[in-house]
Amino acid sequence: MSNSASTTPIVPVIMAGGSGTRLWPVSRETMPKQFIAIVEDGMSTFQTALRRVSGPEFSAPIVVTGEEFRFVAAVQMQALGITGEIVLEPERRDSAAAVAVGALIAARQAPDVVCLVMAADHVVHDDAAFVSDCLAAAEAARDGRIMTLGIVPTRASTAYGYIELGEPLASPGAHALARFVEKPDSARAEAYVEAGFLWNCGNFLFAADTMIEELAERAPEVLEAAREAVASGARDLDFLRLDAQAFRAAPKISIDYAVMEKTARAGVVRASFGWSDVGTWDSLYEVKPADEQGNVLEGPVSVLGTRNSMVRSEGPLTAVVGLEDLVVVATPDAVLVAARDEAGRVKDLVAQLIGQGHAQATEHLRIHRPWGWYQRIDIGDRFQVKHICVNPGGTLSLQRHHHRAEHWVVVHGTAEVTIDGEVKLYHENEAAYLPIGCVHRMRNPGKIALKIIEVQVGSYTGEDDIVRIEDVYARA
Amino acid sequence: MSNSASTTPIVPVIMAGGSGTRLWPVSRETMPKQFIAIVEDGMSTFQTALRRVSGPEFSAPIVVTGEEFRFVAAVQMQALGITGEIVLEPERRDSAAAVAVGALIAARQAPDVVCLVMAADHVVHDDAAFVSDCLAAAEAARDGRIMTLGIVPTRASTAYGYIELGEPLASPGAHALARFVEKPDSARAEAYVEAGFLWNCGNFLFAADTMIEELAERAPEVLEAAREAVASGARDLDFLRLDAQAFRAAPKISIDYAVMEKTARAGVVRASFGWSDVGTWDSLYEVKPADEQGNVLEGPVSVLGTRNSMVRSEGPLTAVVGLEDLVVVATPDAVLVAARDEAGRVKDLVAQLIGQGHAQATEHLRIHRPWGWYQRIDIGDRFQVKHICVNPGGTLSLQRHHHRAEHWVVVHGTAEVTIDGEVKLYHENEAAYLPIGCVHRMRNPGKIALKIIEVQVGSYTGEDDIVRIEDVYARA
Repeated sequence: MSNSASTTPIVPVIMAGGSGTRLWPVSRETMPKQFIAIVEDGMSTFQTALRRVSGPEFSAPIVVTGEEFRFVAAVQMQALGITGEIVLEPERRDSAAAVAVGALIAARQAPDVVCLVMAADHVVHDDAAFVSDCLAAAEAARDGRIMTLGIVPTRASTAYGYIELGEPLASPGAHALARFVEKPDSARAEAYVEAGFLWNCGNFLFAADTMIEELAERAPEVLEAAREAVASGARDLDFLRLDAQAFRAAPKISIDYAVMEKTARAGVVRASFGWSDVGTWDSLYEVKPADEQGNVLEGPVSVLGTRNSMVRSEGPLTAVVGLEDLVVVATPDAVLVAARDEAGRVKDLVAQLIGQGHAQATEHLRIHRPWGWYQRIDIGDRFQVKHICVNPGGTLSLQRHHHRAEHWVVVHGTAEVTIDGEVKLYHENEAAYLPIGCVHRMRNPGKIALKIIEVQVGSYTGEDDIVRIEDVYARA
Repeated sequence: MSNSASTTPIVPVIMAGGSGTRLWPVSRETMPKQFIAIVEDGMSTFQTALRRVSGPEFSAPIVVTGEEFRFVAAVQMQALGITGEIVLEPERRDSAAAVAVGALIAARQAPDVVCLVMAADHVVHDDAAFVSDCLAAAEAARDGRIMTLGIVPTRASTAYGYIELGEPLASPGAHALARFVEKPDSARAEAYVEAGFLWNCGNFLFAADTMIEELAERAPEVLEAAREAVASGARDLDFLRLDAQAFRAAPKISIDYAVMEKTARAGVVRASFGWSDVGTWDSLYEVKPADEQGNVLEGPVSVLGTRNSMVRSEGPLTAVVGLEDLVVVATPDAVLVAARDEAGRVKDLVAQLIGQGHAQATEHLRIHRPWGWYQRIDIGDRFQVKHICVNPGGTLSLQRHHHRAEHWVVVHGTAEVTIDGEVKLYHENEAAYLPIGCVHRMRNPGKIALKIIEVQVGSYTGEDDIVRIEDVYARA
């Protein structure tokens, strides 16, 4: 290891590709929990993760996420004034492939640059402590170790894997890692806590070349697929799109199984910060302040004779009577009621809902697009009504419908509307009519959001009756 | 009693003025449970009550209901092809005043005509048995008795008053009534069931003159107020509107306290029909067929590891995980989650919600009007969107707004729109614009429902910015 490395900032590799189904119905596959302000008002955990590693100890982050989340990731980084590399996975191939990609891209800066692989959906209660633990781990990483941050257990949880510490390393606070143990039963969990084992939270620090060497030895197919996917990747707007064919060759395996449980170089730093993976509604309940009855109440909710429960609404007035240890989460199009200690089964529930063909299982009512979002507000026989919001500068594709006419009423901002080649501005309280078959486009030329109520009338109002003729976001 | 009376049909007096708050959020003060298809698809309990007494044994019903329910009561009777007297109470004065009004109006046909006072919100499982029990009770009523229908208990309920039977009367199946007992504790309830006591379901049969005599003796203020309210009542369209000042003089007292518990003439027929007052979600759960897990599932719902629960949705996808003995009821704007055995406390919950200022405590999202209904589908800063449905022949008031313009898009049917005196027809997929301050009216001149999407734009979109200039339903 060169001496100069010790002053090089750490490269955060933020894993933001998860689907977060256990926090359904707020988190859904098309807009998962890491991008939603689910813990902190107005800020997603992806954003709090970015903020956590925005100090001088870190360089610009590498964000690894799914193709479908590229715009939301970019917008949320932009909102914090943070720039970085956004790497797009064509599909989920588990964490080993994502870590390999991160290490390979970071290694372009310097082969031995230290990387911090961190999840975009965790909560850390003390960012300064997190940074200082990272610096301690980074020192050991520069000595060739692959370091984990081990969380001091707050209870004998059966939901996490555990870490047994080995002998102290040269770097202060760092230990060798004696062994990883799988998620235990509750008797074993108590014994582990008793013996001073730590939780494996899945955040790692390593020098890029160390990880690449380990992958080459223990998961060569993963490494080769990742190397090829990066090398043949394409730049699209501000994104690095991994080569799909190459990336799909990577075996689906976690970094824990592929490397961490096998390597002789694993180490651990005992975390000095409070942590939660907010993986379930129950764990979210645990990190939120409760009232005197032990309830966490969010949004328009009201309870009577109810204790130790989480009741959260993003729309409907939600009332709970005479119950305990419950999670109730209401959104405008889906409601979850679960026993708190069964909250982990929401993942199975979502699989069941998908099997039953419920669109709400994976899609939100509000559909995000590169130019803003839209939301259905009414539907009936031969008509549909949408609320459309176009960001300043946003442009919808030039398009045509075969089966519906549309009425657009501007309720906020200014619209530039093109109908069969004719361009006209529409202001608040003005309406445009788009007959069936016309070629049209909407753009927000202004400085504030454009909001439109769109009334569709016709024999078919499905989303697939769009002929895209031209699109600034390359979707035509 | 004259002999001729024995062939005269029974006059049903249907009490349809209740507020049904314990079935919130489906039942709300502005549209309570008796008018909602809550038990049977497409038919309210008010309608099943009307149907139950539509045979030749009965004459046209007298419906006693609130001023605010006059149109829904009329429309629901019309749907069944049933005509009758609709008597409007200016406010709720409990059951003694309503029974007095019913008896006084029925007595106009013949002083000794037999009346059947029945609730509009009960479920009867065998209409033929109900009719035959009524005929048995009517015979005793013609002998001067005030007869109740006593329900054979299916469990030792503490939710009902009980009836002890006395000696048999001359009419077959009829007994004198030994005594009424108040809702008991569970030990007493078991003793009562053991001893063959019956539930008091609050349905009565009596000759009009018998009841009037008893009221004159035991509740003269109630009778006088009712007599004056009927005598000074006004006919309004097809309704008999009781005189408000006179009616408000009636003491608020139930017919049980005022007469039944004091009279020496009380009798009882043991009911041979299954019955439920569906007063709570739990009792509704009891009358519905359950699946193998003991669940009653209605609407877009999905359960996992859940038993003996009622899950009902009128909109949002509603999922329950790992729970038992629960009631979950979801509507587009309100959600209830309650322990089944605490379902009676929903009444207290609604009082709490009213105190907290939640409109959903008393108002439905869909607001019924004489001409049809409307429903808000979106609202934001300086705009609101409504779905409006106008029945064939329905006419909205001639009106003006000071603070908003309106865009109307016809999505079904045909609208006749008047704007500042100019009348024009609009068909499906046509839009009308109503500038701020214009005098306008909408009418459905067609044979099918007219559906309009209304987009309001302006500085204030509250319901009270309506200047009504003229109204066919006398609301101007």
